[in-house]
Amino acid sequence: MYASAELFRRRGYAATGLKEVLARADAPFGSLYHHFPQGKEQLADEVLRVGGAFFLALFEQVADAAPDVVAGVHDFFSGAAETLVATDYADACPIATVAGEVASTNETLRQATADVFESWLEAARVRFEAGGVPAGEGRDLALAVVALLEGAFLLSRALRSTEPMTAAGEAAAALIGSALASAKRGSP
Amino acid sequence: MYASAELFRRRGYAATGLKEVLARADAPFGSLYHHFPQGKEQLADEVLRVGGAFFLALFEQVADAAPDVVAGVHDFFSGAAETLVATDYADACPIATVAGEVASTNETLRQATADVFESWLEAARVRFEAGGVPAGEGRDLALAVVALLEGAFLLSRALRSTEPMTAAGEAAAALIGSALASAKRGSP
Repeated sequence: MYASAELFRRRGYAATGLKEVLARADAPFGSLYHHFPQGKEQLADEVLRVGGAFFLALFEQVADAAPDVVAGVHDFFSGAAETLVATDYADACPIATVAGEVASTNETLRQATADVFESWLEAARVRFEAGGVPAGEGRDLALAVVALLEGAFLLSRALRSTEPMTAAGEAAAALIGSALASAKRGSP
Repeated sequence: MYASAELFRRRGYAATGLKEVLARADAPFGSLYHHFPQGKEQLADEVLRVGGAFFLALFEQVADAAPDVVAGVHDFFSGAAETLVATDYADACPIATVAGEVASTNETLRQATADVFESWLEAARVRFEAGGVPAGEGRDLALAVVALLEGAFLLSRALRSTEPMTAAGEAAAALIGSALASAKRGSP
């Protein structure tokens, strides 16, 4: 599971061979089909969902440790930048590479990525609104913040630089800050 | 070239076979190796660069037609949303799917995606600063806007909805609007 998660995350779905997954996991071929009788697609579905849940738990943990919602989001982007550097720009979003590949080619896996993204969007919406963002504005803000994070992962990996992740984190904090400020002023 | 661009854009690099590219292009195998003696990688390099230049030209065209820089960016995101619907969420960024796959696996193609992203960032920076964004702030704003666009492409394709692209376009317009407003007030 961990071996396949790393390969899918770094290379994508098509370029990840089951033989290699099994070699890395030091597991026999039979064990894969025992646990995942439908093979690679079922394994990928599970890897996407587990990776998505793990990433969500990490977000909740970082946000819980921060003094407020702006700081929480800022810290999460900073942590993402540190992880990119520490892994030589290999480890980024657990589902993005596969999500791009499967969106138009594999409905089962597209649905898995959609479910994961929706779980993140809902968690962010709830947290933003609990932190003072007006009810009804949290969803659009969550969409913008997750888009910034995903776009910054792609740009940072391509440019091999944390500059995009840092700029995206500042932008995300500014968008949340503005929503909080307009809520305080009592105007939308 | 067009056939391969469509396949790379929709499915990614690993899942695109040269035989299929040639079949779609109705071209013999020899012609590919005549034009691209280094094969698939060289073809992909060319497809990424040409696709990137085409997308940049589209951005310049949309921005030129708009009354100001905020409207230009807003229109570009709206156009992206329309294209997603018109192509059943298949046609999005010309380089993103491949960029995610190759970032940690193919240095030649990673460099091609980096060059394309840098060309977009520079064009956006120049345009934002010409439109009134303070010199020195255009780069970070360009990074945030391109990140929003890329993240929204991924989310919109995964969710099969224009909602992320619309929210990202509003966020991009708000970030530029705020940079212009702070410039007018004379404060950073």
